[in-house]
Amino acid sequence: MRIVVIGSGTAGSNFALFMRKLDRKAEIIVIGKEPTMQYSPCALPHVISGTIEKPEDVIVFPTEFYRKQRIEMMLEVEAKKIDRERKVVITDKGEVPYDKLVIATGSKAFIPPIKGVENEGVFTLKSLDDVRKIKKYIAERKPKKAVVIGAGLIGLEGAEAFAKLGMEVLVVELLEHLLPTMLDKDMAKLVQEEMEKHGIKFRFGVGVSEIIGSPVEAVKIGKEIVEADIVLVATGVRANVDLARDAGLEVSRGIVVNEHLQTSDPDIYAIGDCAEVIDAVTGKRTLSQLGTSAVRMAKVAAEHIAGKNSIFRPVFNTAITELFDLEIGTFGITEERAKKEGINVVVGKFKGSTKPEYYPGGKPITVKLIFRKEDKKLIGAQIVGGERVWGRIMTLSALAQKGATVEDVAYLETAYAPPISPTIDPITVAAEMAMRKFRL
Amino acid sequence: MRIVVIGSGTAGSNFALFMRKLDRKAEIIVIGKEPTMQYSPCALPHVISGTIEKPEDVIVFPTEFYRKQRIEMMLEVEAKKIDRERKVVITDKGEVPYDKLVIATGSKAFIPPIKGVENEGVFTLKSLDDVRKIKKYIAERKPKKAVVIGAGLIGLEGAEAFAKLGMEVLVVELLEHLLPTMLDKDMAKLVQEEMEKHGIKFRFGVGVSEIIGSPVEAVKIGKEIVEADIVLVATGVRANVDLARDAGLEVSRGIVVNEHLQTSDPDIYAIGDCAEVIDAVTGKRTLSQLGTSAVRMAKVAAEHIAGKNSIFRPVFNTAITELFDLEIGTFGITEERAKKEGINVVVGKFKGSTKPEYYPGGKPITVKLIFRKEDKKLIGAQIVGGERVWGRIMTLSALAQKGATVEDVAYLETAYAPPISPTIDPITVAAEMAMRKFRL
Repeated sequence: MRIVVIGSGTAGSNFALFMRKLDRKAEIIVIGKEPTMQYSPCALPHVISGTIEKPEDVIVFPTEFYRKQRIEMMLEVEAKKIDRERKVVITDKGEVPYDKLVIATGSKAFIPPIKGVENEGVFTLKSLDDVRKIKKYIAERKPKKAVVIGAGLIGLEGAEAFAKLGMEVLVVELLEHLLPTMLDKDMAKLVQEEMEKHGIKFRFGVGVSEIIGSPVEAVKIGKEIVEADIVLVATGVRANVDLARDAGLEVSRGIVVNEHLQTSDPDIYAIGDCAEVIDAVTGKRTLSQLGTSAVRMAKVAAEHIAGKNSIFRPVFNTAITELFDLEIGTFGITEERAKKEGINVVVGKFKGSTKPEYYPGGKPITVKLIFRKEDKKLIGAQIVGGERVWGRIMTLSALAQKGATVEDVAYLETAYAPPISPTIDPITVAAEMAMRKFRL
Repeated sequence: MRIVVIGSGTAGSNFALFMRKLDRKAEIIVIGKEPTMQYSPCALPHVISGTIEKPEDVIVFPTEFYRKQRIEMMLEVEAKKIDRERKVVITDKGEVPYDKLVIATGSKAFIPPIKGVENEGVFTLKSLDDVRKIKKYIAERKPKKAVVIGAGLIGLEGAEAFAKLGMEVLVVELLEHLLPTMLDKDMAKLVQEEMEKHGIKFRFGVGVSEIIGSPVEAVKIGKEIVEADIVLVATGVRANVDLARDAGLEVSRGIVVNEHLQTSDPDIYAIGDCAEVIDAVTGKRTLSQLGTSAVRMAKVAAEHIAGKNSIFRPVFNTAITELFDLEIGTFGITEERAKKEGINVVVGKFKGSTKPEYYPGGKPITVKLIFRKEDKKLIGAQIVGGERVWGRIMTLSALAQKGATVEDVAYLETAYAPPISPTIDPITVAAEMAMRKFRL
């Protein structure tokens, strides 16, 4: 069997490795535009800040590693067209025939149509190449004032990196608060305060209408002109679906797939950022675009090709990040989005400490839990705290993935030790708060 | 309604507070032998090491706090007898009538019948009083060589505290490895190596047959005489059941209760270390004796007395501890105990890193998962690692509490960020390892 993968990112590279484990004999060919196999896009802000020394460090395995697994790599090769009738991928370096094809074309940074967005000193932060350019620009020009457009994860992590390099940073967000898809306003406020403590400024509900100068000198926000010598555009990503659409596959915002991740052509799979999966809360199609989702999709597609009846489960989009001294964890639906979707929810919120009061070093932690009114199920959580947020969001997400109700969380058996956590965990208290509202 | 609680520890104190929240009017009376309300027994080793400065610091709330909640306290009062016919508790300070009685008498350190065990310089580590005595002895005598009898949690935490104070420490354990009820031998080995790195020595499969000298000078292990100027006896605890047994209540190793925590007399409840609950894996009666279990029992009993149909769920005994630079987390059954109980299991084990390879500061972590062969359910886990063990054991325990199978763990949606965790979490890899064995 000849299995061809288009895309050498997280989804494509992991697929190739999983596939090889399941099938020692298959020919596995990865076609990739970039010169390397998988690296971590989430690590890029840490390369800018210098926590990770060299851009190359974020490459997960050297190409030699894949070669040893007998994975054939066609890197710096662009797939131009899929000819489904002849079952070949047409690239700029010739044709590649396939028995099974896996589209893992990922996503690209969305560039809003702002005047001057193509000017020198304006960057996106999506690829290794972006990071190299940013680092070079910083080294050469030593910018002092940064403007970040967009207060999503990449925008905020970029803002932190710039601040750590000593720049003054202003984040401009069109919506009403930061991390607008991950957090509600009350929780976003906690993150904002932390970032402001570290000197980062915010403007909400406004956009950048113009970038002035090349190299950049300023940006226009409403009528105001704000000095800036570096600009990061972090206004989200778009799935790369052109190849799939041109091949006549069903495409919406992403490539439409079934629970085995097959496209409308059963010999062609789509995985990673370019594939549309099911939102566990709304049941609607969604783009997950998380590294963890990409890896799970890679696994499911490889197993299905290998003859196993694997299923990609609907996603809760469990996510975690660190911003300065805070950890922020989320999954599922926010209260704000639930309202828009017409889902009635009951919310439990609690602010506690990460350790028992008598133990030194406890840090504040705020837990917000979202339950569906109809069936009491946990459908979302947001946690902002000084430590041990990750474990709590993992726990809650695991519970939600198993269909847990408010009672399951309130009576959860937790793990306690004085240096680590309180006897009564804040997550169970937050559930208790919600339970009382259910009783009203 | 007049609700009387015997015992002012974690179970009793929390019960009183929960009860007050649920019933603003009830009379709530706590009878306690010790002079304080709840303090954390798990924090006591940290008082010895000096991490927590004063013994009094581990008292969770001052008595004033309970008084404000209109909880009547009869402290330094001993309950001598329960007269169920007259519904009174007979104490050394008079009779206390009750409508509902809650027995929260806790547990006491088990003292093995070793010759010389009553000598000066030989301690247990169960109460505030114990800690005060140990601290006084250490201050006055400046012991240099400690022997700890028993390699359970308290023994090891005590050993660490002694080592941090500069003592040479030898731990003697009758069974084959440390933490014998929590870990299998392979996992215990990892903890042992860490403790040995910090200078602690171990002897397994032997007991201390004699303690020589008062103040202590040496202990006899087999035929060998080992110098020691302080000895900690940490050979487990026993439930305090005399009062219940004398009152004619059904008692086994602990006080027998139903799922609402009622004893064989429906007006009398038993909670905390003294109550026998159900083991979630074996379905047999067990003593949980964890602070978290005590708190959950307190909640369920209070709710049931308040008229709610609350149920205390079977326990997995989820536990976490820190020993030097390791976190150790466990729940459910070990492979060794499963064998004894005749439960066929499939094990998945994986050693990975706590962070992606490219991110600085990752630490080794070993995950061992135990699945029941019959139904593929997760029935136990052991994790030993340099960080973020707590979050993983919480997550796995939550999954087990919701009846998760090996597939649920292998395909679990996890939360990833470079500074925090790898894209493919070690817990899902360990489940994958087990899944392959299931297929054989």
